[in-house]
Amino acid sequence: MVGKAILMVCDGLGDRQIKGKTPLQRARRPNMNALASKGITGLMHTIGQGITPGSDTAHLALFSYDPYTLYQGRGVYEALGAGLELEEGDIAFRCNFATVDYRMIVTDRRAGRISGVGPELAKELNGQKVDSTEIVFKATTEHRGVLVLRGEGLSRNVSDVDPHEAGMAVLKSKPLDGTMEAKRTSFILNRFTALSNEVLREHPINIEREKKEKPPANIVLARGAGAYSRLDTLQEKFGIKSACVAGGALYKGVARAVGMEVIDVKGATGTADTDLMAKASAAKSALSDCDFVFIHVKATDNFSHDGDVNGKIKMIEKIDKMVGYLMKTGAYIVLTGDHSTPCALKNHSADPLPIVIYGEGVRVDSVRKFDEIACMAGGLGHIRGLDVMPLILSYTGKSKIFGS
Amino acid sequence: MVGKAILMVCDGLGDRQIKGKTPLQRARRPNMNALASKGITGLMHTIGQGITPGSDTAHLALFSYDPYTLYQGRGVYEALGAGLELEEGDIAFRCNFATVDYRMIVTDRRAGRISGVGPELAKELNGQKVDSTEIVFKATTEHRGVLVLRGEGLSRNVSDVDPHEAGMAVLKSKPLDGTMEAKRTSFILNRFTALSNEVLREHPINIEREKKEKPPANIVLARGAGAYSRLDTLQEKFGIKSACVAGGALYKGVARAVGMEVIDVKGATGTADTDLMAKASAAKSALSDCDFVFIHVKATDNFSHDGDVNGKIKMIEKIDKMVGYLMKTGAYIVLTGDHSTPCALKNHSADPLPIVIYGEGVRVDSVRKFDEIACMAGGLGHIRGLDVMPLILSYTGKSKIFGS
Repeated sequence: MVGKAILMVCDGLGDRQIKGKTPLQRARRPNMNALASKGITGLMHTIGQGITPGSDTAHLALFSYDPYTLYQGRGVYEALGAGLELEEGDIAFRCNFATVDYRMIVTDRRAGRISGVGPELAKELNGQKVDSTEIVFKATTEHRGVLVLRGEGLSRNVSDVDPHEAGMAVLKSKPLDGTMEAKRTSFILNRFTALSNEVLREHPINIEREKKEKPPANIVLARGAGAYSRLDTLQEKFGIKSACVAGGALYKGVARAVGMEVIDVKGATGTADTDLMAKASAAKSALSDCDFVFIHVKATDNFSHDGDVNGKIKMIEKIDKMVGYLMKTGAYIVLTGDHSTPCALKNHSADPLPIVIYGEGVRVDSVRKFDEIACMAGGLGHIRGLDVMPLILSYTGKSKIFGS
Repeated sequence: MVGKAILMVCDGLGDRQIKGKTPLQRARRPNMNALASKGITGLMHTIGQGITPGSDTAHLALFSYDPYTLYQGRGVYEALGAGLELEEGDIAFRCNFATVDYRMIVTDRRAGRISGVGPELAKELNGQKVDSTEIVFKATTEHRGVLVLRGEGLSRNVSDVDPHEAGMAVLKSKPLDGTMEAKRTSFILNRFTALSNEVLREHPINIEREKKEKPPANIVLARGAGAYSRLDTLQEKFGIKSACVAGGALYKGVARAVGMEVIDVKGATGTADTDLMAKASAAKSALSDCDFVFIHVKATDNFSHDGDVNGKIKMIEKIDKMVGYLMKTGAYIVLTGDHSTPCALKNHSADPLPIVIYGEGVRVDSVRKFDEIACMAGGLGHIRGLDVMPLILSYTGKSKIFGS
């Protein structure tokens, strides 16, 4: 395993002190502390000092892609994560099947969390054309889906139709700049939204649901426009073969955007019931063929958004067992998060993340615990998300000398 | 000595822990530790986090020249270090006299480490013309030399003819981009290489060597193309007079490129037998006339490339005595390295360097030892190579306030 590395990202891992201690400090985490004791630690500002990262921009930075110049909008990563093949200039959105009444007021943003029927409903929309623009629509999990507008003269600078709140009317998408492309794209998106309602409200599945007094999935609400543009892959940039083990579509999507192979793991759900050991095992297998494996665990963030401190602590303790398993692979282990999500805020924050790098030759510092406070004294000091890949490449002998 | 500074760079000084301690930690270094105790310390990333510096790019950065925009290729610094006066657009290479057989297979890359005969052989090549391009060739130490191609329409984007390994055929230089200039330069370099073989194989010195069964110096192999372009000097940038005390040609060359006066010191060899106290004494003398003196000690890097931990430790202990002497000059002392060369890797690494600044008014931090681990806690934190000169200028009162 010499020259190989695992980057393990626990979503929303960082937190703030609650009665003197952060959730990470409260968790029983013998393996994480062993990493800290035998590794080099520090604090990582994923984007920069005082900047609150989104999950998409955070992962781009961690993979060495400057989000200030290369971020394409969330829809792109959701569409890639859903397995769609995108073409240069595609405009992608994430979507919900939702329920609207006759006045176009959203009564349920998730159409009663429909399950199993999305793909059947999607058939009615996928492949349609609006004003010569091709509609690619794919249902994903439960009420979720992705929409791609494909054709000439489109722009990502359009506002959402999703009002983000029940009880509100469906919004008209508006151009966010003065270009013809933005005007046209918002026009097409509004036409698509109306079309989805026309087609879906009469669909037998929905007639059936209404009979059973379940909210019908009678509209598609899009949000988070992104414009696809191909990025240089990690292979092209650094000559490394890389793989992704993740449950959530967004993370798989960012991984695909940078050219990682996405490994499907049975039981990897992106929620608290995810099969962590299956993911760890899949990562270990991937190492035989890859130089670099990215593992993403989502549930720490879910608990944080719910303000569930104990849930977050228990999840960290589960992850700790996974860390113990991964330490035995012999690969370099880099453990960190993508952003802090303090339970007290129930939202992302700009607080930096603890980070540890463990493996042959790292300078062992005096830090013996893996948490937000102990790692303040770490030998890495304060680094940025964009520093993580160069560090991994240099430790694994995959980077070239600059100069001679 | 108020307002004067010495920057002492120990090449390849940084290392990693071997059985828990770095060579620097193992060395008896009372003077370095005194600097740390009385100075301000930190870690320095010469180029940037995770970036492995070359010796040339590292020194440019230390002298405040951003290597990403100003690096010209190694040949330039070797040629300047050999004392050549370069002209705008000159293409410079470092070279070896080598031995090839009749099939142009390299049998000895150093021609038996010829000694004393280089200048005589060089006479046959220097001043020749190839395709209207002037050939400037100078023999330096042992088998080494520098080649300059001077004329219109040349490029540094050409590959080496030196195969970098015995047993391999001499390479054809190739253009590394699609320009006419690169094509023409590689053509001229290949013609020069053939010419060197034609001229040298019949040279009386080589006929004599062959009689004595010594490998003849029957070809010149060039590598490391660089294109000279004048840099603003330190005097022009900062209004300071500066000098260099170094043994190795490369370091003298970078110093000349930034406008330092290069002081020739008898016994400064760039190897382990260098006369450190002669260098220290020369540096002290230079301070009377200069604001800033750069001292380079090479041998720490040589031992590191050989994986010789004890050799490195002993060299550090010798340097420590030099440090004791320099501390008494009253000038600010800045002690660091250009890059890490861990003995375990026998090669450069991206690990940062310990750095200490000692002199009037620096904020004394809690660090009492000068090494890679202790300096993690230093008051300078993590700095970049490009930060070093601004710090020196500010401590010595040579920088201007920005704004008012």
